Amino acid sequence: MINQKSVRLGSVRSVIRELFEYGKKRKAQIGEDNVFDFSLGNPSVPAPAAVREELISILSSCDPVEVHGYTSAQGDYACRAAVAEHINKNFSLSLSADNIYMTCGAAASLCITLNALLNAGDEVITIAPFFPEYRVFTEHAGGVLVPVLGEEGTFQPDIAAIRAAITPRTKAVLINSPNNPSGVVYTKKSIEQLCKVLQECKEMGQTIYLISDEPYRELVFGGVEVPYIMNYYAQSIVCYSYSKSLSLPGERIGYIAVCPDMNNAAEVYAAVCGAGRALGYVCAPALFQKLIARVADVLPDVSVYERNRDTLVAALTSYGYKVVRPDGAFYLFVRSPEPDSDAFAERAKKYELLLVSAKSFGVEGYVRVSYCVSPDMIARSLPAFAALADSYKK
Amino acid sequence: MINQKSVRLGSVRSVIRELFEYGKKRKAQIGEDNVFDFSLGNPSVPAPAAVREELISILSSCDPVEVHGYTSAQGDYACRAAVAEHINKNFSLSLSADNIYMTCGAAASLCITLNALLNAGDEVITIAPFFPEYRVFTEHAGGVLVPVLGEEGTFQPDIAAIRAAITPRTKAVLINSPNNPSGVVYTKKSIEQLCKVLQECKEMGQTIYLISDEPYRELVFGGVEVPYIMNYYAQSIVCYSYSKSLSLPGERIGYIAVCPDMNNAAEVYAAVCGAGRALGYVCAPALFQKLIARVADVLPDVSVYERNRDTLVAALTSYGYKVVRPDGAFYLFVRSPEPDSDAFAERAKKYELLLVSAKSFGVEGYVRVSYCVSPDMIARSLPAFAALADSYKK
Repeated sequence: MINQKSVRLGSVRSVIRELFEYGKKRKAQIGEDNVFDFSLGNPSVPAPAAVREELISILSSCDPVEVHGYTSAQGDYACRAAVAEHINKNFSLSLSADNIYMTCGAAASLCITLNALLNAGDEVITIAPFFPEYRVFTEHAGGVLVPVLGEEGTFQPDIAAIRAAITPRTKAVLINSPNNPSGVVYTKKSIEQLCKVLQECKEMGQTIYLISDEPYRELVFGGVEVPYIMNYYAQSIVCYSYSKSLSLPGERIGYIAVCPDMNNAAEVYAAVCGAGRALGYVCAPALFQKLIARVADVLPDVSVYERNRDTLVAALTSYGYKVVRPDGAFYLFVRSPEPDSDAFAERAKKYELLLVSAKSFGVEGYVRVSYCVSPDMIARSLPAFAALADSYKK
Repeated sequence: MINQKSVRLGSVRSVIRELFEYGKKRKAQIGEDNVFDFSLGNPSVPAPAAVREELISILSSCDPVEVHGYTSAQGDYACRAAVAEHINKNFSLSLSADNIYMTCGAAASLCITLNALLNAGDEVITIAPFFPEYRVFTEHAGGVLVPVLGEEGTFQPDIAAIRAAITPRTKAVLINSPNNPSGVVYTKKSIEQLCKVLQECKEMGQTIYLISDEPYRELVFGGVEVPYIMNYYAQSIVCYSYSKSLSLPGERIGYIAVCPDMNNAAEVYAAVCGAGRALGYVCAPALFQKLIARVADVLPDVSVYERNRDTLVAALTSYGYKVVRPDGAFYLFVRSPEPDSDAFAERAKKYELLLVSAKSFGVEGYVRVSYCVSPDMIARSLPAFAALADSYKK
């Protein structure tokens, strides 16, 4: 008998993937332009021009043995130094290259961090709605995921509920802001209050690590600030990915940053290195490490996403939908007009709208609309949204 | 308390890494050219010209959103189809794209495969000498590594010893040919006999999977054949990496091939997908998947390695060393003139020769010489090898 948990994980398709496959079939039936696919979180904006230029420059002018060779397990020094400098410049901190571990993207960052921290049975609190793979990653690291619902309507962390969920087995709190699937950015006040709770636990003798999963950090609109957790709490670890900020989701490049102010920063960094080794994650893709060393400060063009957000929020609100106005990422959370969001998502299909029911994100009564799509598709989809809303008024 | 096993794994440097760091320091002291560093297995031959050409062509002419976008979790269809076709053409098999799972290199391939197959406490037999991370990967997947010493002098699998090591908990046999660290290629006879044992177990009701770790498959000299395990045994899984064959060790691109003739091929492939998901290994680096789709049939130039082997084998033999003549990879296994290979490797340092004691590879009395270095360095190192041999004659 082979590992049945692995078989199960590989056999059950996620709701999102299921919907995406349905969409492919449906497009073949009625034509690409007649299906409004809001299911996936794949950036629709191309990588900044500097990415192509620098990649070609590295490939054309550098020694291939060096370009494609092994870097050290934790990553190329120049790349790690550039990342540390970027963080220091932006958030007035003093990280060194030795606080950075380069990884194969966000999933790798999280898996490594969880395997570095958790002992069997340790609990990880996360705030619902949350990315469903958090459960898979936590359980594989031997832990238990404890979702705590965000505040109704805003989906900011519910501090009292988080405090109530802490047990002696709580090892970490895992947050994701800007949030997938709600698009909500956790405010400075939320982060301050959350960190105050964790600081109190620390003073009582229980160290709880704060892990921030930040693939959407750069995708914010109108100058909204995403608080940097290391400025609020020393026992902090940031898991970053360039998937969305540089539109490189397939390239699997990101990093783990361990806050240098931790009282056991060297131990935690060693554990990150050890977990990376045990999971086979040594030496992140080398060409992309060389790229990051050159483009660590390049910012994405988020104007299309912002325009899409504005169009959708205005239109959907005018049709009577209740939405959570997002400040970042490229997701819009829409209240289901009926209690069962699965039924709503199913009805939406009749209007060729592919929306993800948010049950798999750990909340009831919402759907996720991924608006990393063309503005043209959004314009064409609006009558369908209107008709879908109308269908509930009859 | 964070995970102490991870802390330990991240704190203890491997013997090879230790020696490499010593070499860096020593070179700074006495000059690059005066240290003969045979410690690392980093290809010294640049990637074939087609790699640079195709990478630049993909980056210049394709839509960046498509080039760098997510592929499906198991990999881009075109890439998987090209890999399957390459295998079919070379080994007269009939794999489809759906037998292939693209991975972030050899370590990822092994970690995923072991997590797909093993239940807690399952045993994995491997043949010593073996790559030391096999133990780390197996233990992280909940298993126990059971090394069985290869035949003295040839380091071919010792079939009787393997048979004796099989218990009801044996779930897999993990082989590596051409072998790191010995450079030995397992013969057709060895593979036939090994597979006969596994087939007998299968007929008795115990399925034991044969996993072949093959980053060195293409690095063989003089037309030596490396038997393809799927031609000998149905319950076979090949873990491949392009690290050495295309000199892309830092790029983390490889694959897992599940033999389609397995009686439970679909279940095993699902478990591979599930383990990949649980470990965060979905969607191998996208640009390199696109590259592999174009260069799946490109072969490396191994002439430098072959020349290096011939020079070293001839010279070292003439100085009185006993060597295992390697047919592949870029490693030479040299018998230590004294029983303790650590002491021999330590003495070699006095002659500025950096050789890896083979204890960490699970055998006593040998050192590994990595000859993926410049022919010039080899020529310059020969007097040191001679003097080292002489030091034992006095």
